[in-house]
This record gives sequence, C-alpha cells and structure tokens, in this order.
Amino acid sequence: MQHILNNIAKEMARETERGKVADYIPQLAHVDPNQFGIAVATPDGKMYAAGDADTLFSIQSISKVFTLTIGLGKLGDALWTHVGREPSGDPFNSIMMLEHESGRPRNPFINAGAIAVVDAIMMGHEPKETLGEILQFVRFIADDDTISFDHKVAASEMQHKDRNASLAHFMKSFGRLKHDVDKVLGTYFHQCSIAMSCRQLARAGLFLVSNGVNHHTGVRVINAQRSRRINSLMMMCGHYDGSGEFAYRVGLPGKSGVGGGILTIAPGKGSIAVWSPGLDHIGNSRLGSKALEMFVQETGWSVFGH
Amino acid sequence: MQHILNNIAKEMARETERGKVADYIPQLAHVDPNQFGIAVATPDGKMYAAGDADTLFSIQSISKVFTLTIGLGKLGDALWTHVGREPSGDPFNSIMMLEHESGRPRNPFINAGAIAVVDAIMMGHEPKETLGEILQFVRFIADDDTISFDHKVAASEMQHKDRNASLAHFMKSFGRLKHDVDKVLGTYFHQCSIAMSCRQLARAGLFLVSNGVNHHTGVRVINAQRSRRINSLMMMCGHYDGSGEFAYRVGLPGKSGVGGGILTIAPGKGSIAVWSPGLDHIGNSRLGSKALEMFVQETGWSVFGH
Amino acid sequence: MQHILNNIAKEMARETERGKVADYIPQLAHVDPNQFGIAVATPDGKMYAAGDADTLFSIQSISKVFTLTIGLGKLGDALWTHVGREPSGDPFNSIMMLEHESGRPRNPFINAGAIAVVDAIMMGHEPKETLGEILQFVRFIADDDTISFDHKVAASEMQHKDRNASLAHFMKSFGRLKHDVDKVLGTYFHQCSIAMSCRQLARAGLFLVSNGVNHHTGVRVINAQRSRRINSLMMMCGHYDGSGEFAYRVGLPGKSGVGGGILTIAPGKGSIAVWSPGLDHIGNSRLGSKALEMFVQETGWSVFGH
Amino acid sequence: MQHILNNIAKEMARETERGKVADYIPQLAHVDPNQFGIAVATPDGKMYAAGDADTLFSIQSISKVFTLTIGLGKLGDALWTHVGREPSGDPFNSIMMLEHESGRPRNPFINAGAIAVVDAIMMGHEPKETLGEILQFVRFIADDDTISFDHKVAASEMQHKDRNASLAHFMKSFGRLKHDVDKVLGTYFHQCSIAMSCRQLARAGLFLVSNGVNHHTGVRVINAQRSRRINSLMMMCGHYDGSGEFAYRVGLPGKSGVGGGILTIAPGKGSIAVWSPGLDHIGNSRLGSKALEMFVQETGWSVFGH
Repeated sequence: MQHILNNIAKEMARETERGKVADYIPQLAHVDPNQFGIAVATPDGKMYAAGDADTLFSIQSISKVFTLTIGLGKLGDALWTHVGREPSGDPFNSIMMLEHESGRPRNPFINAGAIAVVDAIMMGHEPKETLGEILQFVRFIADDDTISFDHKVAASEMQHKDRNASLAHFMKSFGRLKHDVDKVLGTYFHQCSIAMSCRQLARAGLFLVSNGVNHHTGVRVINAQRSRRINSLMMMCGHYDGSGEFAYRVGLPGKSGVGGGILTIAPGKGSIAVWSPGLDHIGNSRLGSKALEMFVQETGWSVFGH
Repeated sequence: MQHILNNIAKEMARETERGKVADYIPQLAHVDPNQFGIAVATPDGKMYAAGDADTLFSIQSISKVFTLTIGLGKLGDALWTHVGREPSGDPFNSIMMLEHESGRPRNPFINAGAIAVVDAIMMGHEPKETLGEILQFVRFIADDDTISFDHKVAASEMQHKDRNASLAHFMKSFGRLKHDVDKVLGTYFHQCSIAMSCRQLARAGLFLVSNGVNHHTGVRVINAQRSRRINSLMMMCGHYDGSGEFAYRVGLPGKSGVGGGILTIAPGKGSIAVWSPGLDHIGNSRLGSKALEMFVQETGWSVFGH
Repeated sequence: MQHILNNIAKEMARETERGKVADYIPQLAHVDPNQFGIAVATPDGKMYAAGDADTLFSIQSISKVFTLTIGLGKLGDALWTHVGREPSGDPFNSIMMLEHESGRPRNPFINAGAIAVVDAIMMGHEPKETLGEILQFVRFIADDDTISFDHKVAASEMQHKDRNASLAHFMKSFGRLKHDVDKVLGTYFHQCSIAMSCRQLARAGLFLVSNGVNHHTGVRVINAQRSRRINSLMMMCGHYDGSGEFAYRVGLPGKSGVGGGILTIAPGKGSIAVWSPGLDHIGNSRLGSKALEMFVQETGWSVFGH
Repeated sequence: MQHILNNIAKEMARETERGKVADYIPQLAHVDPNQFGIAVATPDGKMYAAGDADTLFSIQSISKVFTLTIGLGKLGDALWTHVGREPSGDPFNSIMMLEHESGRPRNPFINAGAIAVVDAIMMGHEPKETLGEILQFVRFIADDDTISFDHKVAASEMQHKDRNASLAHFMKSFGRLKHDVDKVLGTYFHQCSIAMSCRQLARAGLFLVSNGVNHHTGVRVINAQRSRRINSLMMMCGHYDGSGEFAYRVGLPGKSGVGGGILTIAPGKGSIAVWSPGLDHIGNSRLGSKALEMFVQETGWSVFGH
C-alpha cells in the first residue's frame, strides 16, 4: 500500500496539467497548485500517506458529508422533506431545477441542498452553536481536537456570497428555509472553511468504511443502514454533473470540494483522502481524480467488482 | 436463501397496491398484474427462485444493458462519442436535455441513449443482422437457446412509436444517427421485446457478478474493468430519475424495464432478477423494487457496506 | 367616450369573479377587491373617468415603464448592454432564463430586468437620490406634485424580498449589478410602491400617445423614435407570459402591475388607465383586462387596425 | 414612395455583409445571395417596387400567416385548443417548451405550431386536397392564379425532415396531431415551398392592411377583429426569438421566412414585402430587416406612433 501511494505521489509530481485553482473565492486562489497529498486509513487502524498529506486545506463541500450525517442523526428520515436524493445532472450551483421543483433541492450535495441541510440542523439555534456542534462532530470522527475553521476563508466566501445567496433566498421564497438567510449562509460558509489534512480526512471517513463504526476509535458513529445510505448518496451525487464519470473511472463513493480535496470510501477496505488544488472544468480536483483512478487500478478496490 | 425468497414471494402475494401496468404499449397492457417472480443466480452455479420465476415477460429496457455490453465490445471507448455517462435527472423519454446538448444523449439507459447505442452497433448492417447478433449474445450469456423476440410486442411498440421516433429524428437532425430512423427504431423495439423469465435473466446477469466471467458457463464475457464500469452505469442511471432512490434503498446496481422486470447485480455474490408488471409513477416495477429492498435487508447485500 | 366609460364601470360593478388580490405582499393583501376605476386622457387635454378613478393604488410594475424611460434618457442605447428586449415566455419572477443567459435579463419588464435597469440608473448614487429622481420624473409627466411613495408598501415588500433578492444576487454573481444588492432592492421596492390614481396614471402616459410630447403640458419628454420603442416594449413584454393574450384581446401596448393597475397606450388617440385589485393567475388585473377588452371593442382603438 | 424604395434598393446593393443563405435545405442553398427586392402595395390600389421585386422565392414560414387565416376561418376560436398565442422566447425549431406544455405549441408561427395548424385544417382530407385549398386561398388574396408550389423545394425539405419530424412525432405522442405524421409533414413542406415575388406577396398582404378587406380586389377576406388579431400574432411571434428586436426596430407586424422574405403590415397604410436570401443568426433576412428599418425611418410608418 505504501509503495502504491509513493508511486502515485511521484507520478503526480510529474504532471504538468494541474487544473485551475478555484478563483471565485479569493482566499482559495492563493493556494499553490503544485501540491499533492494522499492518505489511506484502513479499518485495522493503519494509516498510509504520501506527498503533502499533512498540509491543511479547505475541505469545502466535503463538509456536506458530515452535515448530512449530523442531519440524519438529528432529524432521521424527516430530513428528506427538506431535500431530495436524486442526482441533478446540473452544475453544483445551478438554480434551474429549483424553479421546476418549488425550491426543493435535488440532493444534499449540490450547494442548494447543503444549505437546506444546514438550515434544518440549526433548529432555531444561532450559527455559533450549530458551528460548535459541527466542529465537535468532525473532531470526534477524526479523533483530532486540533481541527478548526479557517475564518479568513469563511469571510472571503461571505464577501462573494452572491450565487449562494441567490439559491438561499430562492428557497426561502418557497418557505424552504426557516432561519435568516445571512445566518444560514454564515454557518454554511464556516462549515465549508474547515481546514484538514489528508491524514485527518482519511481518518474522519473511517466510519463509512465499516458500516458506521470508526475502527480507529472503536466507536459506532451511526448504524449500518445509514452508513450504506450515505455512501450511496456520495456515489450518486458526490461530484455534481461529474458523478457518473467518477463512478465510471473510480467506482467508489466519493465527495469532492473546490478546495481540491476528495474523500473516497472503499467499504470494508479503507478511506482514501486525496488533495491537489487544481480543478477540472466541473470543479473537481484534477490530480485528485487522476490519483484515485491510478489507486483503484493498482488495488482493484471497487464496489462494482470484488 | 431459498427461505428468504419464499418469504418475499409470500409477502408480495399479499400486497394490494401493485402499481399500474404500462399502458402505452397495448400489448403490455394485457399482462395480469397479479404476478410476481424472483430468481437469484450465484457464482457457484446455484439458482434459487420463487413465485412466477419461469413466466416469460418482456425485458424492455433491461435489454439496454446487453446492447451496451455489445456496443463496448464492438466500439470500445469510441462508443462514448455517441452517448454520455452521466445521470440525467430526467424521465426516461425526456427530450429537453437533448436540445441543450446538441442531440447527444446523457447516458445509454435513457431511451435516446439506447437508440444511439443500437445505431452505433448496426454499423451499416440491416436490422435483421443486428437483431441476430443481439439475440445470439443474450442466449450466450443466459446459456439458453430458447430465448426469443416477442414480435407482437415489437409490432405494438412500432405502432406507438411517436415519442421514440421524436427522439430518434431529433438526434438524426444533429447527425447523431447514421442509419434510417425507422430501421433503428425497428431494431430497438425488437431488442426491447425479448421475452425472458426471472431464471433466465438472473443467469444472464452472472457475468457482471464475477468481474466479467459467467461462472455458470465458465466463460469470460468481458474483462474485469468493463464489467465494473457497466455496473457503475447501472447504478448511476439504471432507474431514470429514480436511480438515486434505488441506490438509497437497495444499494446495488440495477436496471429496470417497463415490462416490470429488474435485473440487479451484487458483485461477488449473485445476480437477482425480479418481475412484477405493475409500475410506479417513474416506470419502475413497484413490487419489484419493494422485493429487492426486503431482499437486501435480509441478506445484507449492498455495495455500500460489507 | 364618457358614456362608454360609464357603461364599462357599471358592467364591472356587476362582475362576481374578480380575481385574487396579490397576497405575497401583506400590505397589498388588505386592499378591498370590490373597486374598479378607469380614466382616459386624450392629446387634446380632455380627461374622462368612471368608477374609483381617484383612489390611489400601488402602481408596482407599471413603474418599470417610467424607469425604462429614465434609463434610456441617461444611458441611451448603452442601456441594452444591461438588459435585452425580447419577450421571455416565462412568469414575471422566473430565474431560469437568467441561468441560460449568464445573468442578463430578457427584457426590462420582468422583475430581473427592472432590477437591472434601476441598478443602471443609480450610477453610484444612493437610493435616496435615485428615488428622488424617479419621483420627480413621475410628477413631471403626470403634472402632479402630490404623487408619492407608499413607504408602508415598500417596507412590506422589503420584508418579503426573497424572490427578488434571489434574482438580484444571481445577477450580481455574474457581475451584472454594480451596486449593493440591498440598496438596489430598496430602490426597486420604493419605485414599485408609488401610489397613483387612474386619473394621474392616464395623464402620466400621455407622452407615449403623442410621439414623446405630453400634450397636457405641451412639453416634449422624449423623442418620437424612443416613444415608439417604449411602446413596442410594452406591447411585447408588458404582461409577462400573458403578453400575447393581451395583444390578441386588446391590441394596444400596455403595462400591468400586481397592484391591479394597467396603463395602456393608444398612439395618437389616448392613454387609458384602469385599476381593479383582483388578479388572474398570471398576475394581471382580471377586471382591468376585461374592461380594456370592452373599451377597444366600443372604440375600435387598436394598433393592428385603423 | 417610389423614390424611397429606389434609395433603399440602391443602399442594399452596396451592402457587403449579406448574411448566410439557409443551408439546411439544399434546394434553398443554391439561391444567389446578391439579390434584393422590395414592393409596397397600398389600399388605394397602387403598387411600388424596386430591385428584384419580380423574382420568385420560397415564402417558407410566411405561409404560416395564410394557413393561420384559413385555420381561423375553418375552426374559429376552436383553433386555439391546438396551439397557443404567446411568444415562446425560443428558436423556431425548439422542442423544449413542447415538453413543458404537454405537446401544445406556444404559437402558430414556430414550426411546431404551424404543423399543428396544418393538421387542424386537414380535417381528415388528403394532403392533395388541403394543398389545393391553401393554394387557392393564396391565389385569391394575391389575385394571381400563376402562384404555385415549388415541388423541388418541398422534396428537398422532405429529405431533410428530421427536426420537423421530431416535433411532429412529439406532438403526436401527446395526441395533438390527428393525421399521419408523414402526410402532415408533406403538406407542411409544400405549403412552405410556395414561390412568390415581392409584388405578389405585398398584394397578398393587403387584406391585413384594411381590417380584412383586400382593397385591390374590393373583397372582404375576413372580419376586422380577426384581421387585427392576426396582425397581433405577427407582431408578437412573427420573428421567433427576434420578434422583440423586430418590433423595436421596425414597429410593424411582420412574418419572416428562411427563404429570405418578410411580409410586413402597416395597418391603414400598406403592405410591404421585402426579400433578400441571406439570413442573420436567428433565421431572418439580414438585408430584409435592414431595408424595413430604413423604410420606417423614411415613412414614419409604425403602429407605435402616429
């Protein structure tokens, strides 16, 4: 395993077409594109890593997996009155389908859906409290109390909030958000700003590898059915309108973020976190996707074979 | 296993809300909705079955899995110039996205995509030859030479071809079909009219269970990577705009048909064919989906857990 | 003429199906639906009126005609870089087409377009100054210094701003708005809250009857070509996705508002203002449209005949 | 008037950017783009012409005005159950809105709408009979028995029917067409192939100038209200998604065809036919539109002023 990761890191270092760093959030635009990290956590407690696996990056939309988990914990199936669970076939920030479907987002992983989820878990509380809850959960599953928000990134996103503000006000106009739009957005942007390394992220994903139990800590986070269902949502919707491509090439449930990270789950085998800041035209990490494709070719890990 | 199937069949016999038999193809509208069959084929060569598992039904869109396999065999990755591989988020017969994407269908499992695939595999030949090839392939993977077209169903579909004719002419107007529209449609409707039982269908699916090898016959049908990729397409797009729901509830790659059948693949474990003619509002078998949900709860089979 | 108006007012008083008062702005929902007014101003300086022609009502979207006129005066044809001039075929508050067209609204009479126009005429000034300019213009063309904003209505709209806020943030995310979204919306809602009577409104429309000259005051407001072009925009886009219907039934350029008013221009003949608060399902005054249909049948006024 | 037309023809002869001749119908692609004709018929029986005003061209979609008139004559308001009367905001051959509106075309001037109209006027008869009726009507209003179909053009269109076949089958799948699709299309393509000169076309339009009476022949063709309403439809929908632009620049009801002709009506004043085969990107005659813009600037003819 370590050998495979070393090879991948070496290969990625040679790549010249590294994609384009997200530039609509100025704070992210500063990140050096010549970085690449990969880490694999396995249920037996081992951790393998290569490249910049200890560098912190903004997890951005990967955080949607964690708030979905929290949301299902707090609301159970009632969460699905707030958001659907079908792939949308549209870009991450599309508003069109919202109009067709009376403001109900297609799934919890497009921006509109994630905003609806964070509104649902606020339950009348202030952003601060909800953010405390989210951070506590992420620290718990990653077994690491050093994980924090990057307030500069959050502030930078708030300053460039227009597209997400449009989505939020649109949903609010259909009565789909209960809280003040700016409070919901503030919470959402902070959730996205959480900074983690590949190592931390791989460990945080472990509970989805083992039917809900984090074998690193030995603690059951959620029940087995819910774990499977979160994985199914990552598979179907985790890469926006590139989800089909990811399933085709990588064959594992995964969730990407515009910070350049991708968390990928191989049930029963391991949790893989990759990171490289350059994105493809859909908004997924270019080298991250490539590295994962190499990884599954080497390991044969795939939910579609055995 | 046999016990589980018996229980499911008993449970399904008690169901009163059985959905609505497809009525836009008159020949299918005659089918008695009070039928239900299930069959499971495992790589060790065993076959389990319950209910009307030997009754022939029209496989309809399940045939798209087989023509996709043929298409990948004949054209390789060049097939993807004809059709995409993303879920569409739209109903099976939608034409809208075609307009946005210059006549290129989103994936091979919506009607437009399957029509594009059959056009691609015709390669200048007459419908008769292409249909011979398709039937031969299905008989080969099911190891059963009695499998045939139901010409009455095909003729009935040709008489009510308008929606599919619209899709085909639309693609043709963008230069996306090479052959005469009526010949392509004739081939497509015959492909859909193939009549199979649950037992036959379960056996035909075996090659997707074992990385491309049909363990019943011991023959490698396709290579392992292609097998995984066909499964990924079934997972992402196999149930139209109900694909997310199926992944969430059943957690296995599957492909449904408006004849009421569903073929489902559990990699490494088995191939499950269910059939019940009543459909839900999306066009998937109502009892079929329900039976599969019971089945995975009992067996724990899921690609998203282990 | 007076006789025709009296008859129409009598007829309208008998109507039982009066439509539904706009309820998404609470302040408007309080208006008594049993009101109807009509006024006709002619270039020779005469004024005819019947019913509640002196009652003030919220002109709402009719104000878009006035800000368009101001915008063309300040920016000339450069205004058309901010907004198009095609009918959209969509409801007044639709956001879909914005996504297809990179945030550029189809025309100045849908909400998004009117918001873009007000942003364009602000030119770096504060809402207060822009609003002063708008009010001054309306008082000037109506020759009536008593015309004012209804601050309660404006405040009520600001409290229910979400749909329009969504449109504004969406355009802003494409760089299409220069000013702060809340300032633009504040200006827009005040512009919509202007309260006028049928008499005042009919007089304000006179400059569009006579190729840009208000014959009541004898002052040229705009040149003849611009007057014709504003009329053409009212004809094509003045009633949202009911514009074709209005052209078919009434045959004159007109602009409706959800306050229940409609301003209609018969070039060379007169300016007609009607008002009745109950709306049809598209958001146009139900009795207002009906009264205008009666009016043109009696008078033969139509731009499509002679 | 003659002087104005001479000037326009001279100006147009100097134009170097003449647009692109329609190439999707091979028979039309052969037409020499260096042609331009204009003719004006007035109610007092006068005819003015300049340029290639006697050259025959394919009237194409201008024929939709004539079949609409026939359709309203045969079915009255019942025609509006087959087709709507709102501008669509979409290109002439768009299929999207059909999907949203269950196969009912937005208006009689987009292709789908014109196909629905021809289906409606067939009333169980064969294409031959319907075509006889259409030709008889056109000869009658133009007072010219030499007008004929161009069978070569019709055959060429039938060979490249796919986009229109797609529209027709789509509507048929919703039960919106009563007749065989190929018969409807055959009739439609022949109707579009009618060959006329500017002179003939200007005379044919006269009945819409004078409230339904053709003053050349002194015969009432339709009643005044219907004449106004056909003009309103030409205004709102006569140039597809360029209708707003035409209303803005020309200010008169008009209908264009991809053969390069435009028929324009100035109520009470005259009927103007222009022709030049090069098209703009929307499919309207480039020089034709330009010539009309010059014409209205010189004459002041506009329905939006007086």
